[in-house]
Amino acid sequence: MASIVLINPFEVPAAGEEEFLARWREAADYLRRQDGFVSTRLHASLDPSARFRFVNVADWRSPAHFRRAVGAEAFAQTVRRMPFTSVPGLYRLAAE
Amino acid sequence: MASIVLINPFEVPAAGEEEFLARWREAADYLRRQDGFVSTRLHASLDPSARFRFVNVADWRSPAHFRRAVGAEAFAQTVRRMPFTSVPGLYRLAAE
Repeated sequence: MASIVLINPFEVPAAGEEEFLARWREAADYLRRQDGFVSTRLHASLDPSARFRFVNVADWRSPAHFRRAVGAEAFAQTVRRMPFTSVPGLYRLAAE
Repeated sequence: MASIVLINPFEVPAAGEEEFLARWREAADYLRRQDGFVSTRLHASLDPSARFRFVNVADWRSPAHFRRAVGAEAFAQTVRRMPFTSVPGLYRLAAE
């Protein structure tokens, strides 16, 4: 199946990890109920001082499905409560 | 199987994409022959102006296997020929 991949590296200070995980779960619970959601995996760095403490990798059926899901007001509210710098991007598989 | 995940976002200017892909294939060909390699996936951003134009996500059997593979002189030479900024990190799966 041709799907797309959201990759989202997060900068999270040590003091913010618990809050980040709670917010991430809240966002993931919302997103997994949306049309076009395939799967999501949250990665935590082995090195606590890594620049990107967490990286989310999620499969979606298409860019349109993903954009519709995160464009909804309910989700925007969830994200506004998440005070962490991140670098989200949509990707396609280029090579294996 | 408990494995670890290398996530490596790369900053690659448009003019450097061909060179990047050639270098990535060279590195991947070397790494997939090393003990402990499980799989690798290179992702290309849908947006050509994304900060991280490419993100590599690779599974390895353990941190020790990965570090042994990239610590070898042959690999160090390959990487030195890769003039791209990247933010590599080792990760564990934290949530799904």
